[in-house]
Amino acid sequence: MNDTTFAVLGAGGIGRRALEVSEDKDGLTPVAACDRHGVAVDHDGLDVDELLAATEGNIASETQRASEDVSSADRSSGRSPPEDGDQPRTDGGATVDGGGIKQAGADRGVAASAQAEPTETPIDDVIAESEAIDAVLIALPNLEHDFIPRVAERFAAASYEGVLVDVLKRSRVIGMLDDREETLQDSGITFVCGAGATPGFLTGAAALAAQSFVDVHEVDIWWGVGLKSGYEDNRGTVREDIAHLDGYDIETARAMTDAEIEDLVDEHDGVLEFHDMEHADDVLLERAGVCDAEDVTVGGVLDLRDDEKPTTTTVTVTGETFDGEVATNTFELGDETSMEANVNGPALGYLKAAVRHNRAGDYGVFGPAELMPGF
Amino acid sequence: MNDTTFAVLGAGGIGRRALEVSEDKDGLTPVAACDRHGVAVDHDGLDVDELLAATEGNIASETQRASEDVSSADRSSGRSPPEDGDQPRTDGGATVDGGGIKQAGADRGVAASAQAEPTETPIDDVIAESEAIDAVLIALPNLEHDFIPRVAERFAAASYEGVLVDVLKRSRVIGMLDDREETLQDSGITFVCGAGATPGFLTGAAALAAQSFVDVHEVDIWWGVGLKSGYEDNRGTVREDIAHLDGYDIETARAMTDAEIEDLVDEHDGVLEFHDMEHADDVLLERAGVCDAEDVTVGGVLDLRDDEKPTTTTVTVTGETFDGEVATNTFELGDETSMEANVNGPALGYLKAAVRHNRAGDYGVFGPAELMPGF
Repeated sequence: MNDTTFAVLGAGGIGRRALEVSEDKDGLTPVAACDRHGVAVDHDGLDVDELLAATEGNIASETQRASEDVSSADRSSGRSPPEDGDQPRTDGGATVDGGGIKQAGADRGVAASAQAEPTETPIDDVIAESEAIDAVLIALPNLEHDFIPRVAERFAAASYEGVLVDVLKRSRVIGMLDDREETLQDSGITFVCGAGATPGFLTGAAALAAQSFVDVHEVDIWWGVGLKSGYEDNRGTVREDIAHLDGYDIETARAMTDAEIEDLVDEHDGVLEFHDMEHADDVLLERAGVCDAEDVTVGGVLDLRDDEKPTTTTVTVTGETFDGEVATNTFELGDETSMEANVNGPALGYLKAAVRHNRAGDYGVFGPAELMPGF
Repeated sequence: MNDTTFAVLGAGGIGRRALEVSEDKDGLTPVAACDRHGVAVDHDGLDVDELLAATEGNIASETQRASEDVSSADRSSGRSPPEDGDQPRTDGGATVDGGGIKQAGADRGVAASAQAEPTETPIDDVIAESEAIDAVLIALPNLEHDFIPRVAERFAAASYEGVLVDVLKRSRVIGMLDDREETLQDSGITFVCGAGATPGFLTGAAALAAQSFVDVHEVDIWWGVGLKSGYEDNRGTVREDIAHLDGYDIETARAMTDAEIEDLVDEHDGVLEFHDMEHADDVLLERAGVCDAEDVTVGGVLDLRDDEKPTTTTVTVTGETFDGEVATNTFELGDETSMEANVNGPALGYLKAAVRHNRAGDYGVFGPAELMPGF
């Protein structure tokens, strides 16, 4: 493949790790990165080391505030229906953090990099440079459901021809993207949704494991994450996971203060176990024709006090072969592979695959399983 | 995906099972099948049950004779250099079975089907219908190295726009296809090489498992096949495997009579164990950028006296993550999945993926790993 240039929207844990992983990948050149106060663009390639050093350690509190902004904005405006087709919001910090009060501290995050400029309109700034950007990784967790679809619309409104990739988790967002598929196709956008670890890596593994079968009975995705040292960088992700616990939902998880989250974690001795999570693996496997969404279960164990995984991440796919045998194929990740490795490698891997499709003129909305052998 | 029409060249075990598996797949319509004496074409869809009933049980001896033809042809003509760029041979049974003496028995194989016509030019007959055929599965094992590349050239000479898929095993064939890539691209052909079980299914699994890593140290592919009841249908494949045993090569394996093969099998009590096989997984992973070919090992155990697998088919990929951990990811196939299920499901799965690329105008030679997330 020819060299691929890409941008990262968001400089939290996922955005920064994507930049870091790309340093080890052939043919991938990061040329833009932004968060709500800053944007860095260099079409010859960003100095990732400098950018990471400038943003490392001053993001966690940004993430925390962003989450609070989102919840306060949600409370004040009420939940708008996800399919209301409203116009893209004006840009600025208020949009990058999902709608809320702008924070002081323009020298935090990306803006602290010598390569960056402070900005009130980071996404528009990246869109303005997008003709020279092959792909954009949207690394913005924990925002309202239609936030990523609306970001995609803004790229389409600017007639962007290229790839958009997100690492979203929630099943319901996929439909919102599908509703916008024609707009994306008209623009020339190849959108890959849910391209992190799960959904993403493990969805692809399930789609591949299904190839032995003509009828898939059950897909079980079970993950383990040890996140002691990565906790600070991944508070947004942890907050999203908490929404899956019994008695919580996305709104209540967003409304929690950090102190309340710490109390919850303490109550569970640092280990949170999840069952029947709303992860988009289900709808993504269904749209690829592998199985019905209801035949997919996702769960896992998150240990916030240890970097060792509390359980082995495993995908099992049970089905029937054309010759009438029932069997189970299994995909296991080595326990030493971190969540970050399993999110960012596949996100960039799907990004590369999508660029190939995009260059050939294959536009629209793709789940990870649709970039695998067909079922 | 829209409906996909496909043809099968060859009606041995792999060709017949591909037709059978396609019956259980959405959006795949088999419209043509041939072997060296017969061709069946129905653009509304073949009656697979009738075709299978007509060919079942009268193929083994055809396969045996085809193998003998190949070896006798090789002996009489000498080995032509693989890169000699010679013209496609004239069609007829002589080409379909790899060059040799035409056999009597025009009522055997595909020709025995009520849907078929006897023919001396089966491949040309399929090419003549190929404008309405989206994809062609080349299911012809145990022929000389450049046979499949030359078949591809013949489709290109007829300006075929569509997908060609093979289930070849040997590493050296890939380079011969690469040498013809421009010809295939000019025609509008998307060629997927090595899309069976291994290479194919397991190559794809290795490419996916590699996504945790930024540096892959080692890929180990270890297969188990129990082939008691499938032995008759898969003599060509067994003969290919024997070429990998110590003291044998492709030429000596081809030259063996069936009785000599039986003696060999008896000596090993029906269980053949293979190490360091020349399977194209190595070059296919290298061309996808996953690792060096020399870091890939392929081996396995073939039990011809039992349908139970003598060992579990396992792919292990060891590598280093971006954050410096060394780990091993593992993909295991359930022991109840037959070789046929693991060849034909993936072959049709890669075929479907290739049709998507082809319709977008993405032409050339692809290994299975290149149809996966990029590394």
